[in-house]
Amino acid sequence: MDIEFREGISEVIATTRNDRPNAAPIGIINRKILYAVLYKESHTFSNVKKNSQLVANFVLDPVLYVRTAFEDLDVSFFRQDRDAPVLQAAYAWVEFKCSIAEKPTRNRAVVHLHPVKSVVLSQPMTPTNRAFCALIEATIHATRYHKLKDSKYLELALRYESIVRKCGGARELEAFQLLKKYLV
Amino acid sequence: MDIEFREGISEVIATTRNDRPNAAPIGIINRKILYAVLYKESHTFSNVKKNSQLVANFVLDPVLYVRTAFEDLDVSFFRQDRDAPVLQAAYAWVEFKCSIAEKPTRNRAVVHLHPVKSVVLSQPMTPTNRAFCALIEATIHATRYHKLKDSKYLELALRYESIVRKCGGARELEAFQLLKKYLV
Repeated sequence: MDIEFREGISEVIATTRNDRPNAAPIGIINRKILYAVLYKESHTFSNVKKNSQLVANFVLDPVLYVRTAFEDLDVSFFRQDRDAPVLQAAYAWVEFKCSIAEKPTRNRAVVHLHPVKSVVLSQPMTPTNRAFCALIEATIHATRYHKLKDSKYLELALRYESIVRKCGGARELEAFQLLKKYLV
Repeated sequence: MDIEFREGISEVIATTRNDRPNAAPIGIINRKILYAVLYKESHTFSNVKKNSQLVANFVLDPVLYVRTAFEDLDVSFFRQDRDAPVLQAAYAWVEFKCSIAEKPTRNRAVVHLHPVKSVVLSQPMTPTNRAFCALIEATIHATRYHKLKDSKYLELALRYESIVRKCGGARELEAFQLLKKYLV
């Protein structure tokens, strides 16, 4: 079973490491080549810069998306049986060798991704859930609010709560409650 | 491989039939029991009422979501080798026996869904794409605009174009262009 990054942007949790492993949501961009655009000040980028390694974790748990967007995960969330940093929660992952192509902006860098290994543990048959998508959108706005403190982003993030309540399960509701804690 | 409808609402394309097969996007709701809420005036509901059969098609193609929301599909889009109405584009499907539990609203009915058969043809490993989700949201607003002609829904639908352009592939862009045609 091959893992396919479809044309456009696929949302995953990237894991990298230095002395300790790190996890953060990123988009894997497929526009003829695979790459990611990383904030230069992020742990993800500084780790990639150091050892050229990044793992894309496929994760169904919305709480983990929100958590990794805002805080560092304890090492217990990572597998101990792998050389690469891989999340326990990943049902599949792709390890990349990275090459940095500096982008002409101050804050962000383009990182080219070359697949080294891919592992599929299970293949969940889960159709699109609007609540999961709404959580990703809300998390994006919430991280902007967290950084810039512009109330516009707070309003945009909170707007997704109704979709999460209508379409989500217990785990999506828990993720949104957690998100709101990061917004106070 | 079992098909799992997670807690909350899963977005699928429902196929039903009477003399001819019909396809339309619906949500499969899992709140301890599986059910759907259908508009009583829809083809989907009148077909279910007639023969108690509904198939949930798992489809990756965003163009088909938009198309089935607004128009009838030609029979060539359906498999000829199946008794149940199944889309050629489905990578998996679940056939349900339905029982109607009239809801105390004028326009909509609750339909309980009892799985009869499930088939998995392939198991695509595709992480969440924000453009695909944005298309589903835009389609929901667009069908409301189509029905009610309230410009609020038109604005809400068009607001998703930037996410589709940023995160989508060629097929998501094509789907959004098609959606805009139904909005004029």
